[in-house]
Amino acid sequence: MSDRRLFDPAVLTEATALYKLVQDTPIFSPHGHVNPRLFTAESYDWGTPVDLLIMPDHYLFRMLYSQGIPLTQLGIPSQTGGDVERDHRKIWQLFADHFYLFRATPSAIWLADQFQRVFGLQTPLLPTNAQSHYDAIAEQLTRPEFTPRRLYERFNIALLATTDFASDPLTDHRAIRDSGWAGQVIPTFRPDDVVNFEHPTWRKNIEALADLTDGGVKDYASYIQALEQRRSTFKTLGAKATDHGVVSAYTGHLTATESDAIFQRALMGQATAEDATRFRGHMLLEMARMSIEDGLVMQLHVGVYRDHHTRAYTQFGHNIGADIPIQMEFTHNLHALLNAYGHDPRLRLIVFTLDESSYSRELAPLAGYYPALKLGPPWWFHDSLNGMRRYFDQVIETAGLYNTVGFNDDTRAFPSIPARHDVWRRASANWLAGLLVRGILHEDEAQAMIYELAYGLAQRAYQGGTNE
Amino acid sequence: MSDRRLFDPAVLTEATALYKLVQDTPIFSPHGHVNPRLFTAESYDWGTPVDLLIMPDHYLFRMLYSQGIPLTQLGIPSQTGGDVERDHRKIWQLFADHFYLFRATPSAIWLADQFQRVFGLQTPLLPTNAQSHYDAIAEQLTRPEFTPRRLYERFNIALLATTDFASDPLTDHRAIRDSGWAGQVIPTFRPDDVVNFEHPTWRKNIEALADLTDGGVKDYASYIQALEQRRSTFKTLGAKATDHGVVSAYTGHLTATESDAIFQRALMGQATAEDATRFRGHMLLEMARMSIEDGLVMQLHVGVYRDHHTRAYTQFGHNIGADIPIQMEFTHNLHALLNAYGHDPRLRLIVFTLDESSYSRELAPLAGYYPALKLGPPWWFHDSLNGMRRYFDQVIETAGLYNTVGFNDDTRAFPSIPARHDVWRRASANWLAGLLVRGILHEDEAQAMIYELAYGLAQRAYQGGTNE
Amino acid sequence: MSDRRLFDPAVLTEATALYKLVQDTPIFSPHGHVNPRLFTAESYDWGTPVDLLIMPDHYLFRMLYSQGIPLTQLGIPSQTGGDVERDHRKIWQLFADHFYLFRATPSAIWLADQFQRVFGLQTPLLPTNAQSHYDAIAEQLTRPEFTPRRLYERFNIALLATTDFASDPLTDHRAIRDSGWAGQVIPTFRPDDVVNFEHPTWRKNIEALADLTDGGVKDYASYIQALEQRRSTFKTLGAKATDHGVVSAYTGHLTATESDAIFQRALMGQATAEDATRFRGHMLLEMARMSIEDGLVMQLHVGVYRDHHTRAYTQFGHNIGADIPIQMEFTHNLHALLNAYGHDPRLRLIVFTLDESSYSRELAPLAGYYPALKLGPPWWFHDSLNGMRRYFDQVIETAGLYNTVGFNDDTRAFPSIPARHDVWRRASANWLAGLLVRGILHEDEAQAMIYELAYGLAQRAYQGGTNE
Repeated sequence: MSDRRLFDPAVLTEATALYKLVQDTPIFSPHGHVNPRLFTAESYDWGTPVDLLIMPDHYLFRMLYSQGIPLTQLGIPSQTGGDVERDHRKIWQLFADHFYLFRATPSAIWLADQFQRVFGLQTPLLPTNAQSHYDAIAEQLTRPEFTPRRLYERFNIALLATTDFASDPLTDHRAIRDSGWAGQVIPTFRPDDVVNFEHPTWRKNIEALADLTDGGVKDYASYIQALEQRRSTFKTLGAKATDHGVVSAYTGHLTATESDAIFQRALMGQATAEDATRFRGHMLLEMARMSIEDGLVMQLHVGVYRDHHTRAYTQFGHNIGADIPIQMEFTHNLHALLNAYGHDPRLRLIVFTLDESSYSRELAPLAGYYPALKLGPPWWFHDSLNGMRRYFDQVIETAGLYNTVGFNDDTRAFPSIPARHDVWRRASANWLAGLLVRGILHEDEAQAMIYELAYGLAQRAYQGGTNE
Repeated sequence: MSDRRLFDPAVLTEATALYKLVQDTPIFSPHGHVNPRLFTAESYDWGTPVDLLIMPDHYLFRMLYSQGIPLTQLGIPSQTGGDVERDHRKIWQLFADHFYLFRATPSAIWLADQFQRVFGLQTPLLPTNAQSHYDAIAEQLTRPEFTPRRLYERFNIALLATTDFASDPLTDHRAIRDSGWAGQVIPTFRPDDVVNFEHPTWRKNIEALADLTDGGVKDYASYIQALEQRRSTFKTLGAKATDHGVVSAYTGHLTATESDAIFQRALMGQATAEDATRFRGHMLLEMARMSIEDGLVMQLHVGVYRDHHTRAYTQFGHNIGADIPIQMEFTHNLHALLNAYGHDPRLRLIVFTLDESSYSRELAPLAGYYPALKLGPPWWFHDSLNGMRRYFDQVIETAGLYNTVGFNDDTRAFPSIPARHDVWRRASANWLAGLLVRGILHEDEAQAMIYELAYGLAQRAYQGGTNE
Repeated sequence: MSDRRLFDPAVLTEATALYKLVQDTPIFSPHGHVNPRLFTAESYDWGTPVDLLIMPDHYLFRMLYSQGIPLTQLGIPSQTGGDVERDHRKIWQLFADHFYLFRATPSAIWLADQFQRVFGLQTPLLPTNAQSHYDAIAEQLTRPEFTPRRLYERFNIALLATTDFASDPLTDHRAIRDSGWAGQVIPTFRPDDVVNFEHPTWRKNIEALADLTDGGVKDYASYIQALEQRRSTFKTLGAKATDHGVVSAYTGHLTATESDAIFQRALMGQATAEDATRFRGHMLLEMARMSIEDGLVMQLHVGVYRDHHTRAYTQFGHNIGADIPIQMEFTHNLHALLNAYGHDPRLRLIVFTLDESSYSRELAPLAGYYPALKLGPPWWFHDSLNGMRRYFDQVIETAGLYNTVGFNDDTRAFPSIPARHDVWRRASANWLAGLLVRGILHEDEAQAMIYELAYGLAQRAYQGGTNE
């Protein structure tokens, strides 16, 4: 890997100079899916290179599956029974044999970076060196300097937020806090499991929620109280934000009578699809109201058809790469929320989309107006070099840089975090260099902006403080 | 500001050479929102630099508002009472303190251009020089060479069209004409205020329309006659075009009975939302029919949710930056109009969109087929360097350059007009240079096309004449 | 025309080197609309240069029509009577006089390539040399080396698939096969004419289908049998694929009772619009089932409003350039088909879209997951340099290169085939060169990928075989 990688040759000098300013800036990771269990103690057993690099990354196995490789051959057990590959060396070889499928994808960039910068491997992964790479990684994973806490320090992470369901007892987060370790690993409050009636285990989640709070959940009023209490608990463990994964951005008020009646129907298993939709839209408003009161930043991730492949979901469960985006509408759907709270300086609402056509049309104009609204970085499929370029291209001229919030790595794959932030920093430097050489920015402006993109915007968005 | 600004380094030589061919070409401005009162007499009191540069530009105060600055602190009075900042030096300082928010936005490019080329300021606006910049601009505004008419001449404007409601008595336009001044400042007929029943003052506007025409407005037939008469009056004052701001591109025929019945319901305040939609769709057809008869070019600006922030609208009225685009459909919606009149050489229909996803999918294919249809330039949020690049990229291969109409500056901010046309000319030269170096155009073709983009296409689209 | 044409100057060396690897690779053309009659015998009368170059290319006459030139002046007879230009020299001159309209469009690139590389003309087409170009082309068309079969060989075509309706007796394809010529000109099974009740001659097509098969078409069961039989006949004449042109991507199951009842209503002329929609959605599932059984690749071309200009359709029929794309939805619409068959290694479903906003949002994520699904190349209006760049940009990072299928020229204009594949190969080389110089690919990877793009992906997608 060259130091100049990912830069356009035409702006190489300028991009390199800007990148060097933030190459070693700490990583602020306000949204992701790393398992907090990694950090509960000094030691941690990573398992094999497959456990470390392949299992937590559904970007990888969806691509292999798309080319006809059964998930069971990748070590993913079928819940309906049948053989599963247990030999991780075989799985690793299969992966190496098909690593060419990732050419020109971000996964190839992230993995190359991890192989070289985390594990010191000097050659790309090939079918012919798969086993020696496996050995080299496996050996290093047993060393004390490769425990999650040591890597956290080596990666120069300033803060790492996980994502945790409202009904999660936060045992691991308590353990981290109780251990006295200085790392900042904090939870994020994600109430989808208790808000969305259509969640397969909603009723059970409500019981778990009730068990975790005083007073139980008997009606809408006690439900709201339970949610407020859980938010408060998350806050005491360091949470800075909530996260809401919803299929549409619809927001709309229900009266007290309506919300209670719908909630009662849901408790009795009689809620309709329309009930579920209206209740979700109402709860987004309620969550904004709570954010204004307790100061938690509100994140909205919208527009995914989860578990599109019903047959595979039945066999393998969630998170196998079969979550597919759908078209999104924001101007009408966010109207209720933004009219109720969009002007309030106490609210920070961060919106993420997978429908890029909405960036220049709806989201950038909305973020360029409403004080409470900020745009999240390119998300999921678009967390890539081209996705970032399209984001800068379509968002910044209208929304302005200062209505965005820097980068989120959004990953389960802990060792990929530095690689992902590095791609963002290089993409940012390359974008700013293009503005510099065309006289659109002065040098001091580009220097201020690269720092904002690498750290400042994210830090302020989630921890508060003023610009510049 | 460098002479090479906005050009890609890879095509600098070619872009510079093309740009120089049109750098001093007169400005043809067929669509905008400059106040005609500026030109009614030799003298004009600009007020302060804030009155000149900030007040007419809601691009500016929406961005400051989005970062938490109350509009009242920017000198915009609340209609519901309360304090408003009246010290323009304080407003200017506040603006300068937050000018960094505009980094990488078109507003920064336009303002830098005005500071340097209109006011001769040699340093960028900074918090530290805000007051000296204010002084320098304020001093110049009192000089005779800075009156609107002298600037019109200095800017080398060939024609400047304003936008005027159907119920506007055109007093200023009459005064301009009566003054004998040689400048071409002409009105544009915009009937939204009397076509859209949902307009807050529709009923009053109808009365104003009746007062301005013979025969009054008692029913649909007299309403149509009044509109035709107003169009004729606009034409005698130089109008070349009409303009229609509609929330959707829907067009559809009503029978004579239907249109009269709906119109009667509207007069009695009993029109439904569906009535309003159907009537707007019908009136677009009627306006196309009138355009065929009287030769006025028909402009269609679609797809904006106006006054999205109801709370702020109540306080501050229209045009505060809270107008947000929505998704648009053209293929089905324009079917009625294009089937009725799309083949007619007497009609010129120019469509503008804020939904860029419709360019390559719907608008370019439609414009590449129907003789009457042309595509307007990138509009509003997309009147920017990236917006222009995306437009060239997505439109021209399918529609062809000659089914587009050059540039519209679409601005209320008179002194920004040269800067806006300069960005277009530089973006055009840069685009053509890219085609030249890749052998897609010959040099003589690129030279012909840069002239078309700077002047020819717009001039012919609105004034008639044949290609080349 | 320069050898370096279409390459970005910044990657010229790398792009040229990659392009040279596939410059002379045979052409694999798995989807197009060339008339098979060209190849039934050794000799063929091309007619005039207008017959050869203009008549089969509605890209050309739609552009001239959009600028006010009546189709009758281009030699297209009106079915409602009236004069039509019959002097092909006049038509050619008219075309040359307006050739400037195609500046910066793909048509100009393709024609320039044909003039130079097929006909050896050394100057671009101009109004002043129109007649001498006409003479030069006309003279060559009479030579034996310009017959379709000799051009097929000169163009180095490995396979050429035509598109043929289910009710087509395939007389020409039989004649080609019977002639013993070695060229691979094969049919493609396109059943739209017998599946879509809204097709103007559906009832007649069903009769033609019945005549071509044993057992007739009396009910749904015999209809399915007839389709299966026709597919089998197409296969014996070399067909590799089916093709489905549908207005939406909707797929959905009907019960046996429903499908039979709807089919009976259609036979009696009583099918509703909803019947037609549901039946099309059901038949896509049936066609996928048949593909699994007989191995024909299933192509889906969606999202066109055909014959948008009713007035011109009445006069001139189909294929005059008035087919306009509409918005498309895939995530929900393909759910039924992909859940039924998306995992099946025996199915290959290739989807083409004209709604580019669906690439990064829906199609790339779907293709990056489902084994059966592949993405077709940029289609129709987007079969252009920018369309290809947008496709690479938006598709590959998520879907991976190996879930795409190379290039389709999709043309009626036989002599334009090499030019179209050359644009694709140059665009591919230019894209890969950009990845190479930014360190995203190694040289051996780029070399493997340019071959895949030029030949390998298409060949394997339609003829089978394994990667690499």
